[in-house]
Amino acid sequence: MEAILSAYRERLSRLRDNSNPYSAGIAWVAGEIVPLLEAKIPLIDQGFMHSDLTYDVVSVWDGRFFRLDDHIDRLEASCSRIRLRIPLEKNKLKGILVDMARQSRIPDACVQIVVTRGLKGVRANKLEHLTNLLYILLVPYVWLMEPEAQYHGGRAVVAKTVQRVPPGAMDPTVKNLQWGDFTRGMFEASDRGAEYAFLTDGNQNLTEGPGFNIHLVKDGIIHTPDRGCLHGITRDAVFEIAKANGIEAQAEAVPVEMAYRCDEIFTSTTAGGILPITALDGQPVHEGKVGPITRIIRDAYWTMHRDPVHSLDVFGVESHGK
Amino acid sequence: MEAILSAYRERLSRLRDNSNPYSAGIAWVAGEIVPLLEAKIPLIDQGFMHSDLTYDVVSVWDGRFFRLDDHIDRLEASCSRIRLRIPLEKNKLKGILVDMARQSRIPDACVQIVVTRGLKGVRANKLEHLTNLLYILLVPYVWLMEPEAQYHGGRAVVAKTVQRVPPGAMDPTVKNLQWGDFTRGMFEASDRGAEYAFLTDGNQNLTEGPGFNIHLVKDGIIHTPDRGCLHGITRDAVFEIAKANGIEAQAEAVPVEMAYRCDEIFTSTTAGGILPITALDGQPVHEGKVGPITRIIRDAYWTMHRDPVHSLDVFGVESHGK
Repeated sequence: MEAILSAYRERLSRLRDNSNPYSAGIAWVAGEIVPLLEAKIPLIDQGFMHSDLTYDVVSVWDGRFFRLDDHIDRLEASCSRIRLRIPLEKNKLKGILVDMARQSRIPDACVQIVVTRGLKGVRANKLEHLTNLLYILLVPYVWLMEPEAQYHGGRAVVAKTVQRVPPGAMDPTVKNLQWGDFTRGMFEASDRGAEYAFLTDGNQNLTEGPGFNIHLVKDGIIHTPDRGCLHGITRDAVFEIAKANGIEAQAEAVPVEMAYRCDEIFTSTTAGGILPITALDGQPVHEGKVGPITRIIRDAYWTMHRDPVHSLDVFGVESHGK
Repeated sequence: MEAILSAYRERLSRLRDNSNPYSAGIAWVAGEIVPLLEAKIPLIDQGFMHSDLTYDVVSVWDGRFFRLDDHIDRLEASCSRIRLRIPLEKNKLKGILVDMARQSRIPDACVQIVVTRGLKGVRANKLEHLTNLLYILLVPYVWLMEPEAQYHGGRAVVAKTVQRVPPGAMDPTVKNLQWGDFTRGMFEASDRGAEYAFLTDGNQNLTEGPGFNIHLVKDGIIHTPDRGCLHGITRDAVFEIAKANGIEAQAEAVPVEMAYRCDEIFTSTTAGGILPITALDGQPVHEGKVGPITRIIRDAYWTMHRDPVHSLDVFGVESHGK
C-alpha cells in the first residue's frame, strides 16, 4: 500500500505542475471535449429537471482503466431497468473514454458517465420519441477517504435522523444521483463529529452510505448487506479477493446490532478503494486501528489494478511503461 | 369554468402568433435573462450531480401571479430544512419574476424557481463556503390534465410496482426533483392504460402522485393524506374553498381502500388546478362523471385567481385592464 501511494503522490505532483488545460478535469458534452469547468448542460435536461438519469463511475489508475467492462455492463443494466439507452455503441463509448484520459493526461482519475432522459420528460411523451443524452466527466482521482487518513481510518455513525430510500421506492441497484437521503446522512455525520454515515433500511438492517458499500468483519467472516444497496463493483472485488484468500464473505441481511460487536469495519468504493472505519458512533472499532482482514483486502485491491485481466492501458501497448 | 377556459384559449392563440423570442419560455440564469432553450447550467452543479436542490412552482394566470408570497415562503422553508439559502433578497426575487413575466409576455405561465447547492458538494466542504445558485424558468402554463380532458376527467391507478419515498428517507414537504419513484409510477400508469399514478406509503395509505396531491370525497367530506406528501399550495386552496363553502375537509391518514369506495376523486396541482379523476384501476368513479364537490372546488379555485388578495398583477396597477 505504501509503495502504491508514494508512486501515486509522485504522479499527482507531476499532474499539478502540468499546464494542460484539461488537467483539472475534462468533460464530453454533445460530442465535444471541453475543460470540465466550461462544460454546461441544457437547463431543461430531465437529468436536472427530475434527476431522471442513471450513471456509473469508473477509475483510471496509473494510466489504466480499472474494470471498465464491468462498469459499462452495469451502466447498460441500469439504463435498461429505467427504460433508458446509452446513446452510443459500447465501443464508441470506450473510445471516447480512452480519448478523454489521453487528452487530459490525468494518470489517476474518476470518470463519471451519465445518461439522462434528455430534453423531454416521460409524461405525455412516448419513449420512442425521446432522445437520451450522455455526459462524461473525468477528474483527478477522488478519495472518499484521503490516503493519509487511511493509516488510522475514518469515523462513521449509524444515521438516526434518516433511513435509506427503500428499493420499493427507488431501486438502489440502478445507480442514481437522487442523494436526498445521503445528503441528510452526511449532515448528520458531520453534526456528530464523524465523516461517514451508514444508513439503515428503516428496519434495523444496514444498507450503504453516500457512495460506498459497508463491510463488517466478525470472527473472520466478512458480512455485507445484500439488499437496499448498490451492487458495487469494488464490493465485487472484495468478494473475489476474499475468496482468493480463503476468507469467507457473505452478502446477507446485516443487522445494525452486528456493527457494534464486530471486529473490523471497512467500506468499499471506486472513489478510494477499501476504506477502514476505526470509530463507530464515537466508540473505537478494533481498538481504533486498521484490522488485519481490512489490510489483506486493501492490499490485494490495489495489486489487482495492475492485472491486465482487470485493466485497460489508456496509452496502448506501444506506450506502455514509458 | 367554461368562460375561464375560453378566455384562456383566446390568450393562448394570441401567444402562439407572437414573435417574441421568449414566447416559448424564458429563463433567468446567473443574472441573465435568456430564451428557455438557450439556458444552460454548469455540468458540475450539484443540482445535477446529486439533485441537491429544492424548488417551487408558481403560476401566472391572465397576467397575475397567483399566491406568489405563499410559494416564496414555502421555498424559503424548504431551503431552510435542507440547509440552503435563496441567494437573493425576497423583493429582488419578486422583481425578477415580474420582469420575466413582462418580458416574455406569456399571459398564463408556470414558473419554476430552483435553488441548488451550487458548484461544490456538501462532502468535505463547510456550508459557509458554498455558494447556492438560483435558476428560474417561466414557460407557458402547463396542464397535468389538458382542459379538454377535464370535462370527462382522467384515469388513475394505485401503483403496485412502486411506493412513495418515505419521509424518513426524503422529506416530501421539501419540494424536490428526485422523481425516481414518481417516474416508476408514471411508467406503471402508462403500462396499465392510465394517465395518473397514486403512490402509497408502503403501508396501504395514499400519499400523492407525480406533481399532485390526492383528494377523495366520501359522504360529502373531502379526505386528503396528511403525511408522506407535499403540503401543496393548491391543496391549501382546496381546504380554504371547502371551508368557505361549508364542506368538511380533513387532512388525515387516507387508506388506499377508501379510494375504492369513495364518491369522487380529484387531484390538485399548480400545473392545472383541480383535476377530476373519473376512473381508478379501470373502474369508473362517480359513474365516470365529474362529481358535484369537485365542480364546486374547481370553479371556486379559478375564481380565486382574480382576487387581489391572492394575486399580483404583472403589469402593475396602471396597465391593469388594458
